[in-house]
Amino acid sequence: MSQKRTVGAKIVVIGGGTGSFTVLSGLKQYASDITALVNMADDGGSTGVLRDEQGVLPPGDVRQCLVALSDSPKVRDLFNYRFDSGGLEGHAFGNLFLTALEKMTGSFAESVELASKVLNITGKVEPITLSNVTLCAEGKDGQPVHGESNISYGELAERPQVWLEPHAEANPLAIEAIESADIVVIAPGNLYGSLAPALVVDGVGEALCRTGAICVYVCNLVTKPGQTESFKVSDFADEIERLAGGTFLDYVIFNTDAPNQPLQEKYTREGEYGVEVDIDNLKTKHYQYRGAQLLAQAVKTQQAGDPLAHQRSFIRHDEDKVARQIMRIFFT
Amino acid sequence: MSQKRTVGAKIVVIGGGTGSFTVLSGLKQYASDITALVNMADDGGSTGVLRDEQGVLPPGDVRQCLVALSDSPKVRDLFNYRFDSGGLEGHAFGNLFLTALEKMTGSFAESVELASKVLNITGKVEPITLSNVTLCAEGKDGQPVHGESNISYGELAERPQVWLEPHAEANPLAIEAIESADIVVIAPGNLYGSLAPALVVDGVGEALCRTGAICVYVCNLVTKPGQTESFKVSDFADEIERLAGGTFLDYVIFNTDAPNQPLQEKYTREGEYGVEVDIDNLKTKHYQYRGAQLLAQAVKTQQAGDPLAHQRSFIRHDEDKVARQIMRIFFT
Repeated sequence: MSQKRTVGAKIVVIGGGTGSFTVLSGLKQYASDITALVNMADDGGSTGVLRDEQGVLPPGDVRQCLVALSDSPKVRDLFNYRFDSGGLEGHAFGNLFLTALEKMTGSFAESVELASKVLNITGKVEPITLSNVTLCAEGKDGQPVHGESNISYGELAERPQVWLEPHAEANPLAIEAIESADIVVIAPGNLYGSLAPALVVDGVGEALCRTGAICVYVCNLVTKPGQTESFKVSDFADEIERLAGGTFLDYVIFNTDAPNQPLQEKYTREGEYGVEVDIDNLKTKHYQYRGAQLLAQAVKTQQAGDPLAHQRSFIRHDEDKVARQIMRIFFT
Repeated sequence: MSQKRTVGAKIVVIGGGTGSFTVLSGLKQYASDITALVNMADDGGSTGVLRDEQGVLPPGDVRQCLVALSDSPKVRDLFNYRFDSGGLEGHAFGNLFLTALEKMTGSFAESVELASKVLNITGKVEPITLSNVTLCAEGKDGQPVHGESNISYGELAERPQVWLEPHAEANPLAIEAIESADIVVIAPGNLYGSLAPALVVDGVGEALCRTGAICVYVCNLVTKPGQTESFKVSDFADEIERLAGGTFLDYVIFNTDAPNQPLQEKYTREGEYGVEVDIDNLKTKHYQYRGAQLLAQAVKTQQAGDPLAHQRSFIRHDEDKVARQIMRIFFT
C-alpha cells in the first residue's frame, strides 16, 4: 500500500507475542487509534534474564508491540536487534532500552512512553497490569505449573485453571481503553501462555463485558499437543470467554486455508494440526463467525530485525488478510 | 540562561572524554553549528569490553559528546545510564545503543547519525577516524606502551612519541569540518590518552595548519605525575603542536583560579598540581593567551545520568566560564 487511508475507529488489541505483532502490523495500515494491551507474564529468554538480574517488568512482548506499531524503520530494526556474542548474547536491544529506562525512572509505564516516542509509533502500547506477576496454571497432574515458559511448552490439565501470582490489578489505562474502544481484538497466540495472562487479570473480563465495542477473536491456526489438542474453532472461543470469565465475543474470525503439504507434515510430526472449523457448533453460539483464507503464503525475503524472520517456514497469519477481515466487520 | 542566543559561527571541538563534554555543554548555549571530533582510542571499562566482545569501534567518548550536545533530557540521561547488576553490569546504555546500531548497520558513522537524531543534538559528532586503532606511546623505559587505558594511567617517557596502530586515516568529514570552521577548540583532557589519539591521526595536523579558523587550546588545570609533571601552560601548548606536527595555535586559554585548600591538598597527595602560568614564556610564543577564572566552584546537586557527578569533588572547568572565554575570542 503506497499511502495510508485510515479510519477513525478506536481499536484495542489484546495479547502479546507474535500474534499481536501480526494483528497490529496489519491494522496500522487501516487505523491510527490503536492501543495494544500486552500481557506481562513473559519470563523466557532475554526477558527472563532481565527480570531476574535487573528486577524489571518483562519487556519482551511490549517491545514486539512497540515495534509492530513503529513508523521508524531503522529504530524498529534496532529494537529487534539481538546481540549474538559476549555478555550481551541473546538480549534484544529493545529489551535493554526498556530495562534501562525502567531502572532509571523507576516506572515501566514511563519507559514505554519514551520508547513510543523514540519509535514514533502509531497508537499506544499499555501493559495490561503493572504488577510483577508469575503466570500459574494447572498442570496435567493437577499440580500448579509456575512460569510462562513452563506453561507455554508444558503439558496442562484439560481446560486448566490459570491465575497470576501475586494477585494482579489491571492497569487503569488498559481498562479505560477497552471501555472506550469501537473494536476489541483478541489476537491469536498461545492460549494459556500468552492470552490467558491478559484475560485473567482482575477487571479485564468485566471491562470486556461492559464495553460497547465489537469484540472480535482471531482464532489460532493450529492446535498444541498437551494444551489445545483436538480443539476446534468454537473450543478456542469458549476458552477465551471462560478464561476472562464472561460472555462478550461478537465475532470469531477463523482461517479456511490449508497450508502446503510439506508444511502440514512438518507440523503433524510435532503433534500440531490445523484447527478444524466446526460450523455446526459455531451456528449455536451467541457470536457471529467469519471464515476466510488468512494464511501467509510466500516465504518472504528475510529482513534484518524482523521478529518473524525465523518463522517464515511456519504456518502463520497474513497480517493484511487478518486486518481486512477485522475492518470489514467494522464496516458491516 | 532561559533562552538561547546563539551565533552563526562554525565551531569544531577536538578531544573526547570529560574535557570535551564540558566544552561542548558550555558552547551549545551560544552556538548551534558545533562539530565534536572524537578520538577513537578509548579501550577501558564498558567501551573496552564492547570492543573486545562485539568487535565494534569505541562508543564511550562518542556517547559523551552526543550527550553533551543533546537537547532531550530524558534520552540524555538514558544514554548515560549505567547498569549496576547482572551480565550488563558496568555498561552505559548509550554504549549499547551505538554498539547494536553498528552491528546492525555495519557502519559506525551510520550509528552515530541515528543516535544524533534520537538524542536531538545541537550540531554533529564525528569520529576523528573510522579505523579500528590501538593507541601506543613511548613508556618511561623507552618501550612501547599499548592501549589507551595503560597510557592514561601509566608512566611515559618525557614528551613521548605517540602513534596509532595500525596506521589510521582521518575521517574525511572530520578534516572537512576543521577546514571550514570559524573556531577550532582543542579541549582540555588527558594529553597523551585523550588528545594525542586525535592529533596524531594522519591529516589532522595538516588540516589544523591549513584552516582559516581561529585555533584555541583550553589548557588543562592540573599536571599528571609520570606524564605532564611540572608542565606549565606553555609546555601543554607546545605538546599539542608537537603531537599534531604543526604550528597552528592562535589562542591559549588558561585558568587563574586557585581551588580551595582541601581540594588542592587532595590532589597534592596524588602528585597532581595546578598548572603554573609561565607568562614570560607565553610572551615569546606565536599565539595569544588569555587567563581567566575558569574553575567550577560549587558542588552541584547530583543529577541522574550526569557523567560529571562523580567528579563534583574534583578540580574541574566551569562549562559556562570556558564557553564565554571562547566566544569572547570570536568577538574580539
